Amino acid sequence: MYFEGSEKKAEIVIDSQQLSLLDDFADEFWASLVECCNAQILSHISNEQCKAFLLSESSLFVWNDRLLILTCGVTQLINSVEYFIQQVGVDKIQQVIYQRKNEYFAHEQASCFGDDIKSLGQYVKGKAMRFGELDSHHNYVFHQDNDYLASAEDKTYELLAYQINSEASKVLTTAHLSAQKIRQFLTIDSMLSGFLIDDYVFEPFGYSLNAIKGDQYLTIHVTPQEDSSYVSFESNLNLVELAPQILAVLQPASFDLITFNEFEITDLLTKHVPELYVSQSLVSDQLSNGYQVGFANFIKPQRTFGNAKSLDIRGENHAL
Amino acid sequence: MYFEGSEKKAEIVIDSQQLSLLDDFADEFWASLVECCNAQILSHISNEQCKAFLLSESSLFVWNDRLLILTCGVTQLINSVEYFIQQVGVDKIQQVIYQRKNEYFAHEQASCFGDDIKSLGQYVKGKAMRFGELDSHHNYVFHQDNDYLASAEDKTYELLAYQINSEASKVLTTAHLSAQKIRQFLTIDSMLSGFLIDDYVFEPFGYSLNAIKGDQYLTIHVTPQEDSSYVSFESNLNLVELAPQILAVLQPASFDLITFNEFEITDLLTKHVPELYVSQSLVSDQLSNGYQVGFANFIKPQRTFGNAKSLDIRGENHAL
Repeated sequence: MYFEGSEKKAEIVIDSQQLSLLDDFADEFWASLVECCNAQILSHISNEQCKAFLLSESSLFVWNDRLLILTCGVTQLINSVEYFIQQVGVDKIQQVIYQRKNEYFAHEQASCFGDDIKSLGQYVKGKAMRFGELDSHHNYVFHQDNDYLASAEDKTYELLAYQINSEASKVLTTAHLSAQKIRQFLTIDSMLSGFLIDDYVFEPFGYSLNAIKGDQYLTIHVTPQEDSSYVSFESNLNLVELAPQILAVLQPASFDLITFNEFEITDLLTKHVPELYVSQSLVSDQLSNGYQVGFANFIKPQRTFGNAKSLDIRGENHAL
Repeated sequence: MYFEGSEKKAEIVIDSQQLSLLDDFADEFWASLVECCNAQILSHISNEQCKAFLLSESSLFVWNDRLLILTCGVTQLINSVEYFIQQVGVDKIQQVIYQRKNEYFAHEQASCFGDDIKSLGQYVKGKAMRFGELDSHHNYVFHQDNDYLASAEDKTYELLAYQINSEASKVLTTAHLSAQKIRQFLTIDSMLSGFLIDDYVFEPFGYSLNAIKGDQYLTIHVTPQEDSSYVSFESNLNLVELAPQILAVLQPASFDLITFNEFEITDLLTKHVPELYVSQSLVSDQLSNGYQVGFANFIKPQRTFGNAKSLDIRGENHAL
């Protein structure tokens, strides 16, 4: 059973002098927004600074002046972004950032990044960059090109683990696993002291977690099935520092680190990436909206030959 | 300017007691066959054992008892394979092998491997395997599952170079480069002593070469444009032994080796792969048609950060 775990992601900053995303929008608005990309809201948590929605396909975070939405599978996140722009008005929007990772099953997607940013181009003028080579892991970033300038303190981290080891995959695909057992396995408690947590175990497997504490957030999405496993972490906690703990649990064959405004990335990688990994890609660039974006992909070199994967050719599985 | 260099490949073995592909089929048949996948024959060479057609998209080799066809871009090779089966009759066919590599721009393709083997399944019963992980370079192999058994001496080698170094890319995208200069750059003469050669320089760039000598063959296809460069070698000469010479010229960021019936692959890799490369994937398996298939992907670890790639978002370029 295949599932495209890789998320599309959008972050939109609005002019908080003109309106507040927390005060001026009812939950129905957010429900409509996520429906535009064929996702549903499953639950939500909130504190004074943030509302975090757990979705049938990933997560939506809303702060007073910005939203962050990640959706996986074959959702068309671009439709939700267009809906937001149409409803709120482009004059109240200070910045749109739209990201897409390389996908396991690109041919299954309704649109490619090029299509998506053409849609966005109807509303905002922007620039697009690719971090990483076309034939290996890579990440497309579109951002609105205007006078918005991100604060150097506005840091974001993503850790994306691919092909987790088969033991971890086996644990996380156990039938009727409880959320508590998954949190335990992922060593969540030691990462998230004092956080408000909302999590969900999907059937037959799959797991999502949102966590907030003040203006801090972490979201985790687990697509555990062997052969196309994918576990994503996104946070404004420093995930490079947390990488050793996460990698020790998941032992992925490959992982990406994506950072926004982490200026010590070289030193952090040297310090925190276990020696058994080597870097396939190291890319860093400054966006015109002020963000310094870093992208690093690491792989675990293979020492011995493994077997090929037999494919079920009679099934209706288009993921071949 | 993007172009999908990665080839789809088919090898079909017929019962040479019943007919001869060299004697019983006129050139018009082969022209029709390649037209089925939207390619054209540009030229051909032949000797007593083999006829080699250079195509607008890669190559077709015909021996008495088998054909080998590789086509790149967005060609639908599967249509040519179906045409062959329909024209010749499945009772005269001993073996169909169909291969597809991971593509740079999978979303641009008219079909995926799963679609293709469903089409093939109308004619022949077969098995499919994937060599390599979904999130990195990989190769799909379909083969007919019958009583055909390949000779252990029937060896094939592929060397696929990705992201050749920018100097090589610059040389190979020079305007109006002659075939002779390209052969010189690729050090062809020292690889192919006594071979009959047919080659073609595409406008504005791109290069294909077919070479035959007795029952030996080599075909090279060069998609040189920086950022999505790809150079493929396929031969029954030992390309693992030739790898140091090829890699010294192209210096790719990554390359694959695919072998059929190379039983000394582990020793050969140790001996011939330069030390600056590390293996991302090592896969080996036996097909039920007797072929021992090996797949290895090597990457050159990055030591320093490079810049992101700026993308032209106004262009009609769907390759983003």
